[in-house]
Amino acid sequence: MLNALLHPESVAVVGASRNPGKVGHEVLANLLHCGFGGTIVPLNPAARDVLGLPCYPSLKAYGKPVDLSIVVLPAPAVKRAVQDSVEAGAKAICVISAGFRETGAEGLALEEEILQICRVAGAPLLGPNCLGLLNTQHNLNASFARRMPTPGRISVMSQSGALCTAILDWAAGRHLGLAKLVSMGNKADLNEIDFLAAFAADEETRVIVGYLESIGPGKEFMAAAEAAATVKPVVILKAGTTAAGVRAAASHTGSMAGADEAYGAAFRRVGIIRAESFNALMDYATAFAMQPLPKGNRLAIITNAGGPGIMAADAAQQAGLEVATLQGSTATALREKLPAAASVGNPIDVLGDANPDRYVTAVNAAQEDESVDAIVVILTPQAMTEPAATARAIAGCLRGTKPVVASFMGGEDVMPAREELVALNLPDYGAPEPAVAALKAMCDYAAWRSRPPRIVTRFPVNRRRVERILAKHVRLGHPHVGELHSKEILRAYNFTVPAGRLAVTAEDAVDIAIKIEFPVAMKIVSDEILHKSDLGGVKLNLATPEAVRDTFDLMMLRIRRLAPDAHLEGAYVEKMCPAGREVILGMTRDPQFGPMLMFGLGGIFVEIMKDVAFHLAPITAVEALQMLRSTRSCALLEGARGQAGVDITAVASALQRLSQLVTDFPRILELDINPLIVGPAGVEPVVADARITISGAARP
Amino acid sequence: MLNALLHPESVAVVGASRNPGKVGHEVLANLLHCGFGGTIVPLNPAARDVLGLPCYPSLKAYGKPVDLSIVVLPAPAVKRAVQDSVEAGAKAICVISAGFRETGAEGLALEEEILQICRVAGAPLLGPNCLGLLNTQHNLNASFARRMPTPGRISVMSQSGALCTAILDWAAGRHLGLAKLVSMGNKADLNEIDFLAAFAADEETRVIVGYLESIGPGKEFMAAAEAAATVKPVVILKAGTTAAGVRAAASHTGSMAGADEAYGAAFRRVGIIRAESFNALMDYATAFAMQPLPKGNRLAIITNAGGPGIMAADAAQQAGLEVATLQGSTATALREKLPAAASVGNPIDVLGDANPDRYVTAVNAAQEDESVDAIVVILTPQAMTEPAATARAIAGCLRGTKPVVASFMGGEDVMPAREELVALNLPDYGAPEPAVAALKAMCDYAAWRSRPPRIVTRFPVNRRRVERILAKHVRLGHPHVGELHSKEILRAYNFTVPAGRLAVTAEDAVDIAIKIEFPVAMKIVSDEILHKSDLGGVKLNLATPEAVRDTFDLMMLRIRRLAPDAHLEGAYVEKMCPAGREVILGMTRDPQFGPMLMFGLGGIFVEIMKDVAFHLAPITAVEALQMLRSTRSCALLEGARGQAGVDITAVASALQRLSQLVTDFPRILELDINPLIVGPAGVEPVVADARITISGAARP
Repeated sequence: MLNALLHPESVAVVGASRNPGKVGHEVLANLLHCGFGGTIVPLNPAARDVLGLPCYPSLKAYGKPVDLSIVVLPAPAVKRAVQDSVEAGAKAICVISAGFRETGAEGLALEEEILQICRVAGAPLLGPNCLGLLNTQHNLNASFARRMPTPGRISVMSQSGALCTAILDWAAGRHLGLAKLVSMGNKADLNEIDFLAAFAADEETRVIVGYLESIGPGKEFMAAAEAAATVKPVVILKAGTTAAGVRAAASHTGSMAGADEAYGAAFRRVGIIRAESFNALMDYATAFAMQPLPKGNRLAIITNAGGPGIMAADAAQQAGLEVATLQGSTATALREKLPAAASVGNPIDVLGDANPDRYVTAVNAAQEDESVDAIVVILTPQAMTEPAATARAIAGCLRGTKPVVASFMGGEDVMPAREELVALNLPDYGAPEPAVAALKAMCDYAAWRSRPPRIVTRFPVNRRRVERILAKHVRLGHPHVGELHSKEILRAYNFTVPAGRLAVTAEDAVDIAIKIEFPVAMKIVSDEILHKSDLGGVKLNLATPEAVRDTFDLMMLRIRRLAPDAHLEGAYVEKMCPAGREVILGMTRDPQFGPMLMFGLGGIFVEIMKDVAFHLAPITAVEALQMLRSTRSCALLEGARGQAGVDITAVASALQRLSQLVTDFPRILELDINPLIVGPAGVEPVVADARITISGAARP
Repeated sequence: MLNALLHPESVAVVGASRNPGKVGHEVLANLLHCGFGGTIVPLNPAARDVLGLPCYPSLKAYGKPVDLSIVVLPAPAVKRAVQDSVEAGAKAICVISAGFRETGAEGLALEEEILQICRVAGAPLLGPNCLGLLNTQHNLNASFARRMPTPGRISVMSQSGALCTAILDWAAGRHLGLAKLVSMGNKADLNEIDFLAAFAADEETRVIVGYLESIGPGKEFMAAAEAAATVKPVVILKAGTTAAGVRAAASHTGSMAGADEAYGAAFRRVGIIRAESFNALMDYATAFAMQPLPKGNRLAIITNAGGPGIMAADAAQQAGLEVATLQGSTATALREKLPAAASVGNPIDVLGDANPDRYVTAVNAAQEDESVDAIVVILTPQAMTEPAATARAIAGCLRGTKPVVASFMGGEDVMPAREELVALNLPDYGAPEPAVAALKAMCDYAAWRSRPPRIVTRFPVNRRRVERILAKHVRLGHPHVGELHSKEILRAYNFTVPAGRLAVTAEDAVDIAIKIEFPVAMKIVSDEILHKSDLGGVKLNLATPEAVRDTFDLMMLRIRRLAPDAHLEGAYVEKMCPAGREVILGMTRDPQFGPMLMFGLGGIFVEIMKDVAFHLAPITAVEALQMLRSTRSCALLEGARGQAGVDITAVASALQRLSQLVTDFPRILELDINPLIVGPAGVEPVVADARITISGAARP
């Protein structure tokens, strides 16, 4: 679909200029001098030729359609140029010029007009306000970036043009090749969703790298990202995460779930490898581009220096990787070939005077050892060290069955070796810790690739009942669904709620209490009162008819005084909940990624310890259990400290039904079950309190 | 004290060799070729001259004493050479040769003999098994490292010789100077404690950098480190932290407090900046070497690219730094001088085509703004960017009042600029995140430097009482002090313990219970029974004389059956504790750093959430409050979630008295107060249970 953009056979430069330094000159010069083999058409009404190429006043004058038209005119002239381009048959448009959305309302309007022109013509639009794009496969440098990278396997999409220049320069400094690089600018039309699809399908691309500040429609993004991650690694740095902060929210879950948690949940779901810094972005990409995925997380460390070996082991353990216990046969083989002073444990210390052969011996042993999944090779430049020869020797013995990464430490002495390493597809890092971090990213991605199939259970539920309740709230203009009705909704999705009924008189209340048996709780019922307890609207453990009668009267009296305008339905008389462990289940609908489930242990664990887990709905049975267990406090549910464990599968099932509910009803914006009371195996968890917020019910 | 070693006027090389590649040749060549101005004396019985210098069979034959004798002979010949050196008056010895402690018992014995010779002669010994040392001040390269750094302000001590070579090469690659570099090898004599003192006193050294795997005697290390950190930054990478794991321990506190926690507590106490990776070590050192300390943690970000600016802001917020809110006057000043499209907020975006002047405008504004404490300047190499000129311009406008760090992103295009930056004392990082991390390290150190004076309160206590109890336990061979006696000890240090007395008969027990008032608790008393409750030795809430009588008889019967050999003193009858919040106070005596205090909320907060804080005793009132508040769950004590707060200063006071107790009695190895029950302000916390382990009381 993006063929005309990424693989054009002819490129027009609208605004080609004779003046070096002008963007219209640089773009044309880059096309010419980087060796693009297709047709290049400079357009400029004021010139007959530019840089030796015949120049035309317009594409119409040129007379033939081009694949890609690059516009580098001042903003006010862009619309006309785009219109002319598509009329002359240009199949794709790239607007490098700035002066649009980023400048305010007027610029935005202009940008939208240009987009409209492209949409009508069916021409994809890159930019505006971008650096352009590069494709090393065709020596295409359709940008004003001065550097053309060598061909490689990493393709980059970036929301920051300046970061593209930094990446190009960084890659050049490391002799690292790239496949494609696209500066997305304002993303008026084409965005990360399009390039995820394009790079996923691109045979030259082995790794997709993205720098993103905003992310397009969540659902489409996730679909594109998952499709891409299924065939190749996608490493993304999402900037602006902390600044986004936490949205204002009516629910507990909503107040805990910031945009960053949503990105985290979305990225995990679809297998995106998240880079937490610029260095990590490039470090991970390099490893993925050059080495096979590991089959497990057991690491062998080979080093000519004790200290850095320990650093690597420390980093591995902190990252949750295992420092492999080598097989006995490996130690035997190493002992035969290495000097007596060498350490044949893990780290394998080949000693300070190690020659390339010793490294090869150790790397071969680690490759053969079935208890090793990945290898990091460390070299420090000592008196006898031959860095470049060692690099070649190691590269020469690699079998491609396990990932091998290198850390050649130092500066000038190891620089030639580093260039060799990169050229030989051995990723190299200046220190052991980032080398280990890159392997950790590979392990995580490999684990995602081999995840079990996602089978979402559908539970038989009473969907119609929920529809009716929600419809009524919409009709009445009640965005907040109170406890009583929230529980009815949950009951329709097979949640157990305590027996109870609505009482409209004190006598009613006593009758109900006698029927459901004492002790009971009483709660005021009104969809207009959000914080019942603050107004004295909740009383627990009422044990006698007198207590029930007095409470009803007092409650009505007080609430009428404190909230005179609130519509009161009555008081809900409810059986007291059994004792048990309190957990919170919740959902908040993220504007990008949709329903995000939350789990945490009740009270302090959520509020003080922030020990909660998030997961995007729909959730599978396996994921629900993983989600529960990703909280520290889950150990309490499973029976730590000699306490009886609770029925954790029942909580997982509740999460799945909650997931089904919020997936079935997009109208549900936020939902808290706080707390759900969980007992031992075989006892159904009970919803002690719940609250729902819905859309479309705002008062007129 | 280490003058002869670090500033020698004459250096002998014992084992100087004519064969290039041999260590004895390399060391001599380095001395000669790096420009050392003092006397160089090669020693080798088989040569008359080496590298053009007259060679002697021995120092005796040379006839004059030398300051420093460097031994590069094979291990078996080293002892003799050291003996000869000191006899001939050498004032310091450096043994480069390997083959000692690191090879096993025989090597260790040899090493100790050599040490003995040096000790007797009063000559400090560096090594054995090391790279040697360098001092750029005198062009002294007394090592077999091939690189001689340019003079600089960073001095390095390293337990890994290979890491020294990597650091030298790394520094050369960045054109970064060093002051001194010492490879400590096996640390037979001289170790980090000596070099902390030497570098602290050294006027050429502005930053001390250390790579350590083990650390010498804790007390001396801490004293030396604190003295050093008081005058200059000390940045240390401690490797091998995770592998150390958690020691087996009888107490709760002991089982939570691993070696890593102890290093953390010790480093925090004495102001050491801990680097978590090799890159961090060098990154932090560079910032400290070149820039003044910040006065606060408010950061201004200046950038010619939006994306990297956001990355820096993200990193700052994650590190707990503040993205400064610029003063209104700053925005006004910037708006006047920068183009309209520039962003005058923070980050300050000087735009992609920024020239050096624009950077200077922004840096000056940030320097003037009183709400800015530190500045990070980001540059990406775009079409109009002049990296080197910008570097010079920025360096030219610095006032030295606030730290300024740079992140010039990219590779070859920014390389010349990077060299300028380093030469101009502007620390440069390849990406925004490490630049921010370096500033964070500076902020932490500045905060330590301006900490309030440490005044440890001495409480009036009954020290004699504790002495008597401990002495009795030692005499009886009871290493475990049970609850009853532990509480007596704590009572002597003003802890409140519930009223109670030892009962030896059932009638006793009833009488005591009546006197202290029901309900009571009963606990078996025996210093030989560690886990009383497991044997039915604890009963709570006994409300009647009958219950007390029955419980006493049953307890004695059962314990005699279950632990027939245990010496029973009787049963302790104790008033039930009041209700309140449970916290744990504890102490474990770290083999390196002495008594380490622990605090956590009772039960799950310690065991499941691992939400505990450690601090080395003695502790001040300010530190005790900081320690409490460094746990997340402390919010509960202070009255989160609408609960009444407890008397947190009473807990802090308890911690201080615990600190005094364990400082007064080194015999106390481990101590748990678990739980201490804390009530509202004005109510003294009560020790509900306690346990102490002491040394010197093992059974014969």
